[in-house]
This record gives sequence, structure tokens and C-alpha cells, in this order.
Amino acid sequence: MVGPEIERLIQLLSRLPGLGPRSARRVALHLVEKRDVLLLPLAKAMADAGEKVKTCSVCGNFDSIDPCSICSDHRRDDALLCVVEDVGALWAMERTGAFRGRYHVLGGLLSALDGVGPEELGIAQLVERARAPQVTEIILCTPATVEGATTAHYIADRLASADVMVSGLAHGVPVGGELDYLDDGTISAALRARRAI
Amino acid sequence: MVGPEIERLIQLLSRLPGLGPRSARRVALHLVEKRDVLLLPLAKAMADAGEKVKTCSVCGNFDSIDPCSICSDHRRDDALLCVVEDVGALWAMERTGAFRGRYHVLGGLLSALDGVGPEELGIAQLVERARAPQVTEIILCTPATVEGATTAHYIADRLASADVMVSGLAHGVPVGGELDYLDDGTISAALRARRAI
Repeated sequence: MVGPEIERLIQLLSRLPGLGPRSARRVALHLVEKRDVLLLPLAKAMADAGEKVKTCSVCGNFDSIDPCSICSDHRRDDALLCVVEDVGALWAMERTGAFRGRYHVLGGLLSALDGVGPEELGIAQLVERARAPQVTEIILCTPATVEGATTAHYIADRLASADVMVSGLAHGVPVGGELDYLDDGTISAALRARRAI
Repeated sequence: MVGPEIERLIQLLSRLPGLGPRSARRVALHLVEKRDVLLLPLAKAMADAGEKVKTCSVCGNFDSIDPCSICSDHRRDDALLCVVEDVGALWAMERTGAFRGRYHVLGGLLSALDGVGPEELGIAQLVERARAPQVTEIILCTPATVEGATTAHYIADRLASADVMVSGLAHGVPVGGELDYLDDGTISAALRARRAI
């Protein structure tokens, strides 16, 4: 009905996160309507990204240079190494501007069900990096889920012999969060970790 | 922070309908992670669509052939001409499979505020098509909004001299619709158009 090119476009668009068949159709139509100002520039931007963006061989971040712009930034603190699940988590940390150390991207979490073991996550390389003399603290920023906590525990065990401090993000009430909308586990954790004001 | 290629990708993705800055980042990350199976195929599909898809010179549909596959399908009924606002509405009609006639895409609706007059919508071409001897009915399928109704009225006036029947979609309760969730205007229209069972 819509021709093979648009059909193919809709089919691929519907595989993007957050887009279903209906929104993929809407996006495809919008793209064809805005051929010169959106469709062709986006096609080029995607081809560019596909050609130039690679995985940083040091930390696992995505960038067009290797080592990535964070790893090759001399102003960042070599003493701190932040361990994150994926590049999305790295971006989230960077948006805060609150962390000026280095990163290590695991590329996943330990999962017996999915067959993801320490080798798949390159934890040996992380231990290796943690042993570098300038590194003093490893901050484990895996998500606060069962798999995230399991992965953090496993890494902490593996790092026990290295001469570094191992820390994790604090649990508590999100800034701006209303108690009524929070789950019991978070409120309990925030209570246990209560601080003098 | 993420390199110019990914930055550019996020910026263009955030201009797609239904995507904000946050979901555009998520999509960009997903694309870079699925470089070979999604990013590059999508870049190619977009370039293909940009190169091959054009506007049908007869009805205004998008297709890689001109006249489009609907206009050049000899099994469709030349007697019926369905007038729609845009290609999205044409696709919606086609998905039903309930209409086997031809289309005319206006490319918008009359709007004094936005400076869209009869010339911008090519209404003269529609009147011309309606005068063809094989055409017996024009079905106005503009949306049930103020601008859609204004446009339909205007077109009906312009077609008064042509020897065709002019009709519009019925208003009423959507199939599966609960009265409690419907607006008053729709319920009133459905009541006025009530039918013997």
C-alpha cells in the first residue's frame, strides 16, 4: 500500500525503543514530508555516526576518538573510577556534572539466566585498571536492582585484594520526591541512612 | 561530552514527532549499540526513501512510482473520489480496507490564521478531477474539527456545479466507545443521526 521504501522505513523505525507500529508510521510520514530538512540530514547523521563512532578501548564509552574524550581529558581525576552498567548510565552521570573522574563501562550486569558471567563484562580488565597506582577509589554505580546489586557485590569481592576503596551510590529519597509516591524499600533505606541536620 | 556525531544524531532525532530530548538520547544510544543491525540499515532505508519516494502527481499520495500504486491500480473504482487532509489520513483509510475508490490529498486544511487558502490546497485541481465523466461521488473525509468542517463546506460549495454527489463520513459513537468517555458533541450527533435497529 505505501511502497517498499516507506514499508521498510516503518519496519526499522518500529524497532526503536519507545516506538510501536503506529508511532513508527507517524514518524515515517513526518520524515517523508520533511525530506530535505529532516529525512536526508538524519540519514547522513546516522551514516556518519555508524562510520565514526566506536567503543573506547579504555573505558567502553562511545566516541569518535579512541581513547574517548573523557579518557583523554587530562583535567579529569585519575584517582576515581566510576563503574557503570552501560553508556546510557555514563551519560546520565556526565549530565550531572558532579563527577570528574574516569569511567569503566561494564556493558551489562551479571545474570545467570541470560548467561552473562564475569568474562562477558570484562571484570578482569576492571580489576587490572583498579590496580594502577594512581587509582584510589572505585565507585560502583550499577543500578539499584537485584542484578545491579549482585554485580556490585561480585566486583567488590574481586577488588578486595586491590589497594583501593570501593564505594557505592547512596540510597535515599530522590530530590523532589514525595514520600507518598516512593516504594517502601527506598523509604526504609533512607531511614536507615538518616543524617543529622 | 558525547562527540559531535552522536550530538548531531540526538539533535535531529529530537525533532521527530513524539520524541523529546530524553527519548532522542535513548534512541541514539540504542542505534549506536545496534550499529550493524539497526543504525546502518535505517540510514540506508532513509536515504533510499529520500531518493525514491515522491508525491503522486495525480492524487498527492507518497510512493516510489508516479502515478502512485493506488492511482495506477486498474481494479479500483474510478467513480469514487475520497478527499483527505494528508497522506496520514489516506493511510488510515487504506488500513481499513473499506474503501476501493481513488483519493485526493489536499495537503492541509483551509486556515485564515495560517494563510492557507484554496490555492494552497489545490482545490481547483480537485474540482477539475471531479468533473471527469466517470466520477459520480466525492467523499469528503477531512477531520471533524472546525477547520476540517470549514474546508469540507468550502469544497462542497465549489463542487455544487459539478454533476457529482458530495458526501461526508458519518458522525457517531466510535465502535467500542463508551458513552461516559465521549464528548457531548459526539453524543448529540450520534443521537440526531440515530437509526432504526
